[in-house]
Amino acid sequence: MTRKILAAVMTAPERPVELREFAAPELAEGSALLETAFSEVCGTDVHLWHGRLAGVPYPIIPGHVSAGILRAVRGTFAGLDGRPLVEGDRVVFFDVHRTCGRCRACTVNGTPTRCPSRRVYGITDPASEGLFGGWSQAIYLEPGVSAARLPDAVSFEDYIGGGCGLVTSVHAIERAGVAPGDSVLVQGTGAVGLSAIALARLTGATTVVAVGAPLDRLELARAMGADHAFDVTATTPAERVAAVRDLTGGDGVDIVIEAAGSARAVEEGLDLVRDGGTYVIAGHYTNAGPSTVNAHEQINRKHLDIRGCWGSHVRHFARALRLLERHAAHVPWRFIGARQYGLDRINDALADAEAMRIPKALVKP
Amino acid sequence: MTRKILAAVMTAPERPVELREFAAPELAEGSALLETAFSEVCGTDVHLWHGRLAGVPYPIIPGHVSAGILRAVRGTFAGLDGRPLVEGDRVVFFDVHRTCGRCRACTVNGTPTRCPSRRVYGITDPASEGLFGGWSQAIYLEPGVSAARLPDAVSFEDYIGGGCGLVTSVHAIERAGVAPGDSVLVQGTGAVGLSAIALARLTGATTVVAVGAPLDRLELARAMGADHAFDVTATTPAERVAAVRDLTGGDGVDIVIEAAGSARAVEEGLDLVRDGGTYVIAGHYTNAGPSTVNAHEQINRKHLDIRGCWGSHVRHFARALRLLERHAAHVPWRFIGARQYGLDRINDALADAEAMRIPKALVKP
Amino acid sequence: MTRKILAAVMTAPERPVELREFAAPELAEGSALLETAFSEVCGTDVHLWHGRLAGVPYPIIPGHVSAGILRAVRGTFAGLDGRPLVEGDRVVFFDVHRTCGRCRACTVNGTPTRCPSRRVYGITDPASEGLFGGWSQAIYLEPGVSAARLPDAVSFEDYIGGGCGLVTSVHAIERAGVAPGDSVLVQGTGAVGLSAIALARLTGATTVVAVGAPLDRLELARAMGADHAFDVTATTPAERVAAVRDLTGGDGVDIVIEAAGSARAVEEGLDLVRDGGTYVIAGHYTNAGPSTVNAHEQINRKHLDIRGCWGSHVRHFARALRLLERHAAHVPWRFIGARQYGLDRINDALADAEAMRIPKALVKP
Amino acid sequence: MTRKILAAVMTAPERPVELREFAAPELAEGSALLETAFSEVCGTDVHLWHGRLAGVPYPIIPGHVSAGILRAVRGTFAGLDGRPLVEGDRVVFFDVHRTCGRCRACTVNGTPTRCPSRRVYGITDPASEGLFGGWSQAIYLEPGVSAARLPDAVSFEDYIGGGCGLVTSVHAIERAGVAPGDSVLVQGTGAVGLSAIALARLTGATTVVAVGAPLDRLELARAMGADHAFDVTATTPAERVAAVRDLTGGDGVDIVIEAAGSARAVEEGLDLVRDGGTYVIAGHYTNAGPSTVNAHEQINRKHLDIRGCWGSHVRHFARALRLLERHAAHVPWRFIGARQYGLDRINDALADAEAMRIPKALVKP
Repeated sequence: MTRKILAAVMTAPERPVELREFAAPELAEGSALLETAFSEVCGTDVHLWHGRLAGVPYPIIPGHVSAGILRAVRGTFAGLDGRPLVEGDRVVFFDVHRTCGRCRACTVNGTPTRCPSRRVYGITDPASEGLFGGWSQAIYLEPGVSAARLPDAVSFEDYIGGGCGLVTSVHAIERAGVAPGDSVLVQGTGAVGLSAIALARLTGATTVVAVGAPLDRLELARAMGADHAFDVTATTPAERVAAVRDLTGGDGVDIVIEAAGSARAVEEGLDLVRDGGTYVIAGHYTNAGPSTVNAHEQINRKHLDIRGCWGSHVRHFARALRLLERHAAHVPWRFIGARQYGLDRINDALADAEAMRIPKALVKP
Repeated sequence: MTRKILAAVMTAPERPVELREFAAPELAEGSALLETAFSEVCGTDVHLWHGRLAGVPYPIIPGHVSAGILRAVRGTFAGLDGRPLVEGDRVVFFDVHRTCGRCRACTVNGTPTRCPSRRVYGITDPASEGLFGGWSQAIYLEPGVSAARLPDAVSFEDYIGGGCGLVTSVHAIERAGVAPGDSVLVQGTGAVGLSAIALARLTGATTVVAVGAPLDRLELARAMGADHAFDVTATTPAERVAAVRDLTGGDGVDIVIEAAGSARAVEEGLDLVRDGGTYVIAGHYTNAGPSTVNAHEQINRKHLDIRGCWGSHVRHFARALRLLERHAAHVPWRFIGARQYGLDRINDALADAEAMRIPKALVKP
Repeated sequence: MTRKILAAVMTAPERPVELREFAAPELAEGSALLETAFSEVCGTDVHLWHGRLAGVPYPIIPGHVSAGILRAVRGTFAGLDGRPLVEGDRVVFFDVHRTCGRCRACTVNGTPTRCPSRRVYGITDPASEGLFGGWSQAIYLEPGVSAARLPDAVSFEDYIGGGCGLVTSVHAIERAGVAPGDSVLVQGTGAVGLSAIALARLTGATTVVAVGAPLDRLELARAMGADHAFDVTATTPAERVAAVRDLTGGDGVDIVIEAAGSARAVEEGLDLVRDGGTYVIAGHYTNAGPSTVNAHEQINRKHLDIRGCWGSHVRHFARALRLLERHAAHVPWRFIGARQYGLDRINDALADAEAMRIPKALVKP
Repeated sequence: MTRKILAAVMTAPERPVELREFAAPELAEGSALLETAFSEVCGTDVHLWHGRLAGVPYPIIPGHVSAGILRAVRGTFAGLDGRPLVEGDRVVFFDVHRTCGRCRACTVNGTPTRCPSRRVYGITDPASEGLFGGWSQAIYLEPGVSAARLPDAVSFEDYIGGGCGLVTSVHAIERAGVAPGDSVLVQGTGAVGLSAIALARLTGATTVVAVGAPLDRLELARAMGADHAFDVTATTPAERVAAVRDLTGGDGVDIVIEAAGSARAVEEGLDLVRDGGTYVIAGHYTNAGPSTVNAHEQINRKHLDIRGCWGSHVRHFARALRLLERHAAHVPWRFIGARQYGLDRINDALADAEAMRIPKALVKP
């Protein structure tokens, strides 16, 4: 790839995304260049475009989760399994490409997703530093990136349909600690929620309930594994709480996973979960304002566990790959990535994602 | 004890407590009669008196945690260790005297403290059913009560000073999962908070912070093991958050235990705990109104664990006894039970407890 | 049922099982009489027949897990969900019908399956006390038994095919803590092992390996969900360890569940699991002699977790029912119960079970 | 430090340790040079000297845990708390100075102490690469080492008395999961065992039992916090099992921590722990031969948890520092480091350590 590389650059919040040309990067020892097959436009990109994330060094090339074909390697570029990846391989990679490994978050506190030096493709690296985003014909895989060969059973469309939502939901399911026979309710039918529904089913839940909108997403939620789906636009919180108690002998569900990003969802979720159950809050990636919570009625007396879930770790990425390899043939992750957009239509993709016309827009540079 | 037994009866909410005489009960096989040495007036009794707990079958004999001398036994009355307790023994007992063992809470859900058939001395049994409360010269220990001989190293005053607050705080510390070297902050310096301070220290915390009032309680908090004590009446929440971050290199503490029962404490507590830390809510035994919580800033992004903690289980009672046996000589639990009141002064005791003049009033029938 | 009830009685170890007639029992308040549709002959019954369990009060009516139709109820006989069960209902029940709820095992130690007063249908009750075993035309369901209506989607054959092995394997899977994407190997393809294979798959394992014999069981293991099946009679331990490492990039599997009951299996299992993995020992219900273990190479250096798994709790029974309801249509539990025997052929059933001609013999009284 | 630096070099197994001179190293950006105040001779060094560890690149400079005064810094050399360490500071550091952070052990498997690229001061680095061991007048602290200022309340003698045994025992206690009121038995009264005794006490155990030898160590075990101490040379395993059951109402202790490194200790330890208890194996750093274990009687029927515990992580080092800061004034860690040896007497130190004349030899270069 000696030719010029075209990439879509977000120059500043709420400014149209622009196409720019970049030179093919010089590869450091142990790095590689990936020809992008697909990247995605997820809810985070909409937040980025509105400037809702702190400390973003615009201009940036967005696109944190992507997949492609390895086109150039310098020296040895090993995958997660320790074996070299070579030119022509179908390759995917974990978007968090650096944590310091030395700070209290990385060491004593055991919260590497809170490392202040954490760097994430598509979010934390200025375009001036190179091809660190997926809205580009090529992506620079720097030395030490956690990359892997995409299993043969998994198409690019399966992988990118799951995308960052799948990896996040692997983390949320880990936090939830689903036990065989549990009932699980997922709030939100975006990319995270839809994958969480599938994972709840795949990890032993025998009753899975979705709460979301619009109707086509609820249909997809059923296809992903939901037994019941409630339309938030057609039912009230009180109706949903009553219906869920009916489904569970009056108790509420064992586990609720919040992937809605709404302050009201938190208030309702605490009423949907049974006494002694678990509530995972995974959808509040940005500030959705305050929730009103009654500590006596909704937490203390219920003997509840509430667990925040921030970002993801390479172990979640690795588990996501194993799950895709086993289940992509019968779980319709590819339908989450509903429409494909060329780089020249990226502003349309952003608009469609924001309007919730589709669960996820794919970028095909 | 063939003579009449005097007991203090709470006839209805906000009515003066009255003294009444009861006949000595007929003992069922496997039951016993305890001559009360001490019972207590705790915050729950104040709530009972105001009618803030649902379903209480007034009139009742309050006093859920008590201690005394075994005066009569019918058949074999075995302690927790399986060995018979005999007349003359100094005996204590777990206040939860029945759970059904069959409902979903007791079995599938694993939340026996939420069993709807749970019965608790001093709270759930009408006075018409017998001597099921400690504000009485004698207490009926029905068959199956979890009783134990008080270890020689533990005085009645030590035991009742710890009282129900100690057992509750054993549960809170279990939920907190203190690891050696943790920093622990306790909100509230009532009977639960003071014991939680002692237990945090005894279970490996190397920094213990108390937040409470008034000043004499903060002094007692230090005597129980707090390294730092903040007066809630003399500092603002923002000042406390800043001070606690200073103490912890900017992070916040590893664990916060809420034992204050205030809606504002919950809001502040979420800011006091570090990212990836644990917040235990143990003080909201009754409804203190709504808290305003930001799910993004205070839970999701912090990757927090929040754990409600309701009631206690016989294992907490058993552990409390072991802790008292080992530590009563140097941890001043007896100072929590600051003043003693005869049955005839029980209304004064209630008033003093409510006014927070003392952390706990003892009843000496 | 006023007629005489026929039951098969194990009078003493290694004596032929005899048929005896019993009078229909008088029902206590809250009890019921079940007409047996099916009971089973499992490995435990073979051990019972050889006298390998301590303290068994022969003569007994064996058969701990059974299913049938409710024929008589006195008063209210409620199921686990709190609702009354009525005559004509298809009913199943948890075989552990009493634990004391008071001893250290039940309370402080948190090990109710080790309660010394534990009573189990088909094992701990002498025939002289009544119909406490399933090898009988009718079973006495005493007050307090944990019973449930069999879900419509589950046939008697599904339920009894799973039987006690399914409940035990729910416990083993709980101890294993399967995470989504794990590789799980099950040693043993008897009733416990076959169910553990199905549950590993249903709870998120993406690679499931069976080790057992004979060939028809390995076929059934594949039908239950195993991706790979090794014949213990045709391969050596070293070959299996090498093959499993090949399957797992050299690491060994994340989790091994032992359901073989052989001392050699333990030695091999520790080599099959990866560093930092988990080894659950669930198959040593009776003494199979000593294993030789190297604490440095097989435990300490591997940073391993080894977890014994004894008996089961009503929560495992409840979860088993939910799993059957959801999955019996596509998981062939009914094929584990390979052959049916009338009461008059019970000695043949025992012989066939012992010779491993079938994974499980069904008793159809 | 421009002068020559003297260090003790282990040239090959079972050859006398030799003194050699090294040039002061050139400091890389972000590195530092520590003037050694103390290092130690622990059991691992004895194993190293006998060639019992695989892959050691002799000649090496032993001494993995050490403490000293910072004499030179190039650029910024930050401590664990993120603040710069400067010349003249009393500094300690975590001996594991590199793990790869990319392999399956470091990422997916969650076992960084099993990373094949792990490098440890005093063990894995050849003397030809520089001053990577504490038996030297100076130690090279390479960029990225986890270092910390020694708290003022902790003397060098306190720190080095705890040494690697303290850090290992922090890990063992973490694996043990001590709950308040637990009974804990420690097998072995070497450096790991003595610290584990102190930590069991400090983390809430109310009964602590030591099993070891010789008598002066048992005295030190009592000073560290043991309530009971059994001399392995004067009692039989059966006597100890009987005595421990007597101490615990017949149950056995809640937790046993193995720090003896003997195959017999494992066999005995499984009999000392109660049903449902936890057995941590931390002392088998090298191969002590096979143990004979009965999976039925000692694991399965006991519903036991057995946990291997390998190496340590920087979080254990950080917690060790907090524990020393809080407790060094009253826990006699400094007495574990019983005798001091100059570099010229290092062979005597090894001989004394091997002969168990002292729990630990200190090296004072």
